[in-house]
Amino acid sequence: MPSANASRRSQEKPREIMDAAEDYAKERYGVSSMIQSQEKPDRVLVRISDLTVQKAGEVVWVRARVHTSRAKGKQCFLVLRQQQFNVQALVAVGDHASKQMVKFAANINKESIVDVEGVVRKVNQKIGSCTQQDVELHVQKIYVISSAEPRLPLQLDDAVRPEVEGEEEGRATVNQDTRLDNRVIDLRTSTSQAIFRLQSGICHLFRETLTNKGFVEIQTPKIISAASEGGANVFTVSYFKNNAYLAQSPQLYKQMCICADFEKVFCIGPVFRAEDSNTHRHLTEFVGLDIEMAFNYHYHEVVEEIADTLVQIFKGLQKRFQTEIQTVNKQFPCEPFKFLEPTLRLEYCEALAMLREAGIEMGDEEDLSTPNEKLLGRLVKEKKQSNSYDMFMRGEEILSGAQRIHDPQLVTERALHHGIDLEKIKAYIDSFRFGAPPHAGGGIGLERVTMLFLGLHNVRQTSMFPRDPKRLTP
Amino acid sequence: MPSANASRRSQEKPREIMDAAEDYAKERYGVSSMIQSQEKPDRVLVRISDLTVQKAGEVVWVRARVHTSRAKGKQCFLVLRQQQFNVQALVAVGDHASKQMVKFAANINKESIVDVEGVVRKVNQKIGSCTQQDVELHVQKIYVISSAEPRLPLQLDDAVRPEVEGEEEGRATVNQDTRLDNRVIDLRTSTSQAIFRLQSGICHLFRETLTNKGFVEIQTPKIISAASEGGANVFTVSYFKNNAYLAQSPQLYKQMCICADFEKVFCIGPVFRAEDSNTHRHLTEFVGLDIEMAFNYHYHEVVEEIADTLVQIFKGLQKRFQTEIQTVNKQFPCEPFKFLEPTLRLEYCEALAMLREAGIEMGDEEDLSTPNEKLLGRLVKEKKQSNSYDMFMRGEEILSGAQRIHDPQLVTERALHHGIDLEKIKAYIDSFRFGAPPHAGGGIGLERVTMLFLGLHNVRQTSMFPRDPKRLTP
Repeated sequence: MPSANASRRSQEKPREIMDAAEDYAKERYGVSSMIQSQEKPDRVLVRISDLTVQKAGEVVWVRARVHTSRAKGKQCFLVLRQQQFNVQALVAVGDHASKQMVKFAANINKESIVDVEGVVRKVNQKIGSCTQQDVELHVQKIYVISSAEPRLPLQLDDAVRPEVEGEEEGRATVNQDTRLDNRVIDLRTSTSQAIFRLQSGICHLFRETLTNKGFVEIQTPKIISAASEGGANVFTVSYFKNNAYLAQSPQLYKQMCICADFEKVFCIGPVFRAEDSNTHRHLTEFVGLDIEMAFNYHYHEVVEEIADTLVQIFKGLQKRFQTEIQTVNKQFPCEPFKFLEPTLRLEYCEALAMLREAGIEMGDEEDLSTPNEKLLGRLVKEKKQSNSYDMFMRGEEILSGAQRIHDPQLVTERALHHGIDLEKIKAYIDSFRFGAPPHAGGGIGLERVTMLFLGLHNVRQTSMFPRDPKRLTP
Repeated sequence: MPSANASRRSQEKPREIMDAAEDYAKERYGVSSMIQSQEKPDRVLVRISDLTVQKAGEVVWVRARVHTSRAKGKQCFLVLRQQQFNVQALVAVGDHASKQMVKFAANINKESIVDVEGVVRKVNQKIGSCTQQDVELHVQKIYVISSAEPRLPLQLDDAVRPEVEGEEEGRATVNQDTRLDNRVIDLRTSTSQAIFRLQSGICHLFRETLTNKGFVEIQTPKIISAASEGGANVFTVSYFKNNAYLAQSPQLYKQMCICADFEKVFCIGPVFRAEDSNTHRHLTEFVGLDIEMAFNYHYHEVVEEIADTLVQIFKGLQKRFQTEIQTVNKQFPCEPFKFLEPTLRLEYCEALAMLREAGIEMGDEEDLSTPNEKLLGRLVKEKKQSNSYDMFMRGEEILSGAQRIHDPQLVTERALHHGIDLEKIKAYIDSFRFGAPPHAGGGIGLERVTMLFLGLHNVRQTSMFPRDPKRLTP
C-alpha cells in the first residue's frame, strides 16, 4: 500500500528524496511500491463522479489518472480523470504540501495512476474544462500507483478533437492508424468510452428483447468441417492432421436448432470473412447478432419480430445512453438517428410505385438522383418477388434475410445449382429429412449498427480491436 | 396453406386419395403443399402447454410433431409433441373422420409436423404418459406440414431412457456417437431441450449479475497475429498470405481493456485449444465466460466478485429452471447441486491444516483416501503462496485465476522466463507502459459449468455441436 515508507523501497527514487532532510511533507507523497496484494488497507476510494458540492469540506481518497498537470509558481493544478469523468486538483505550498511535494506532483507523467487524499472545496467560478464543475480537490497526499512513460504515442486531447477544428484551426488530430496502433490509449478517450459502452448496450438490448419474446440463446461452433457456403472468402484452419474452416455465419447451425425444435433462437458471436476488401465497412472478423425463427404460415411473422427487435434496441439506446450519444456527437456531429415505430416497411411493388411516381422508370442506377432513390432502384432491380427482405439504417443495409428452404429435396436442388458439394453439407441437408418447420431469420453486424446509429464513418471506430486484410494487431 | 386441395397438388400423394370418391372426410386431411408464404390464414395456433381443462369443449388448432401413433381398430391415438410438452390426440371414425382418414393419420411417420384441428376434451383417467394429463384432443382435421422420413436414426424414447433402465431391463438406449451424428434429432428430446434452456440461463444470469455490478461487456478478437500464450496447443489460420492463430483465451484483450480504463469487463465467446485430449471434459472449441477487473489494494476484491457471481448464477438457476433440472434428473439422476452463500473459501494454510488434522502429511496423492482429500493435497502441493485462486464445483476445478502482472518490466521478465518472443506480444506489453491499474480475473467454461451443475458426466452432453480432435460435424 502506498506510503512514504513504501516510496523508500521503490526502485524509482524521486529526485525530491535528496532534499528529504528539509522536507516537512516528505511522508505525504512518493512513488508507491507495486501493489502485490500484501495489505488490505481500510481505505474507501471515492468515485470522481461523486465529487459534488454535497461533499464540500470532506476529506476523500481518489484513485485516478493524471490527465493534465500545470505548475504555476508555488502551486500545481492537476486534472484527475476516471473514465469519462474528471476533476481539478490543486497542490499548493502550505501546511500540507512542501515546495518539494508540489514539484513532485508537477513532474508526474500524464496518464500515470495516482492515489490522492484531498479536501473537497466548492469553487466560486465553474470549471468549464472538467465534468465536475463546482468543486476542486485540495491535495494533502499524493502517491503514484502506476507510472506512465513520459512520451505518449498520442495525446488524449488531440484524440477527441473534431476533425473540423483540426482543419480550420490547425490543431492536431490523430489519424486512424496511430489510434489503432495504440488502441489501449485511444480507448481511454471519452469518445471511445462512450462508443463501447453504447455497443455493450446494443448487445444487452438485443438479448433482453429476444429473451422477453421467448427466444433461446444458442452457441454455434466457429470451426467447421467444410466451407459450407460455397467456399469463397473462407479462412482455412489447420485442424490436427486435416483442414477445417472458420464459419462465415451461424446460419446453418441456427437452422439446425430450428429443426431441433428450439423454435426461436438467437446468438451473438464472431463471424469470419476472408474477403480482401479494404473499405470503411468491411472487417475480416466481426460480431454477428443473429436471429432464426420458425413461423406458422408467412415469413412476415419473422420480419415483424426482427423489425420490432431493432425498434426496441433503438428506443433503449436513446433512453439509456443519451450521455454517451452526446459525448460521441461532440467529436463526430451528426443528425440524430431517426426511426418509425413500427418501422417503415416497403413492399417491392410499393417501392416500384414510389419510383414511378417520382418520374423514374427502371433504368440504370445512374439515372436516379438522390442516394435514397439509388437505393430503391438497386433494390427493385435486384430483388425478384422472393421471400427475402433487407433492412436499412441511414440508407445503408444492415440486414439481409430470407425465408429458408425447409424441404430436403429443394435444398438439395439449390445446393447443386450453386455448385456446392452435397457430401460437405450432408448434416445440414439431413436436418430437414425428419420434419422441419418453415422458418426465416437474419443477422446484423454489431460494428455496423453501432457505426450507423452514432453516425460514424468507419467500422474500425466501433470495433475494439479491428481485423482487416492489413491489420491483425493489437 | 394446408387444405385438402393443397394435398392434391403435393408431390407425395397419399394412397388414401385413391379412395377419395367414397371418402366423406376427404377435405379434412392430407399432405399440405410446402409453406412458401403465399397466404396469411387467419388462424390462431394454440400451444400444447395451454391445453388444460379450462379449454375443455373448445375447438383449437395446434401445430406439433407426431411423437407416437398407435392405430387400434377404428381409431388412432397420436401423441402430439411441442418441445417438452405433449398431449394425446384421438382420430376416430365418426362424423368428422372416415376410416380413410384414420388410416391416413395412422400412417403419418413419427416426427412429422402436422396441423391439427380438434376439440379439447377432459379425460376421466389421467394420461400418465403425457405432460397434459387431464385433456385429450378429438381430431377433426389433420394435415401434414412437413413429413419425416420413415426410418429415424434414433428413437426419442430410447434417447431419454436412463442408462440403468437400459442395463437392468434390457431396453434400448442411444450411444453418444449416434446421438451426436444425429444431433438435430437428439436435441429434440426433453432432456436436451432442458439442458440447453438451462445453459442459455447460465449466460443470461452471468451477464445480468455482472451488468448489475457495473461491468461492461466487451468483444475480443479471435484471430490473433501471434501464438501469444507460448505457442503450444494453438490452431493456425491461413490469413491471406500469412499465418495467424485462434485465440486460446481472451485474457490479453481483457487486460488491455483494463489498461484502457474500462475497469470491470466481461465477455462470452468461443475459445480454441488445439489439444489432442480425448477425455470427458476436453473440447477443442468451447464457450468461455470471462471476467477481468481492476482492484484497489488486494486481489481478494476480485475473488469476492467472481465468487458472488457464481453464487448468483446457481441461485438463479435453482429458482428459474427447476422444471429443467428435474427433467434432466429423470434421465440422469444425481445429488442436487449444493453451494454456500458466501462460498466456502479456503486459504492455502487452512487447507494444509485441514489435511494435517485429518492425519495426512504432505506425501504423495496416493496416500490420500477420499477424492476431496486428493484434491486438497494436489492444491496444497501445486500452489505456492501466489496471488492465484481456483474455484470448484462438485470437487472439479471450473476456474483458475490470478492477479495479473501490471508492471511492464516484470511482464517482460516473466515472458522471457517462459521463452515467449517479446516481439510477438509487443502490443500487450506496451499496454502496461502508460499507467496500468492492478487487476485480476478468471474464466469459466460454459459447457463444464452446465455439466457439473446438472451432475452430467460428459461435456459433449452440454455442447450443442461439440468439437474434439475426432469430431468436426455436424
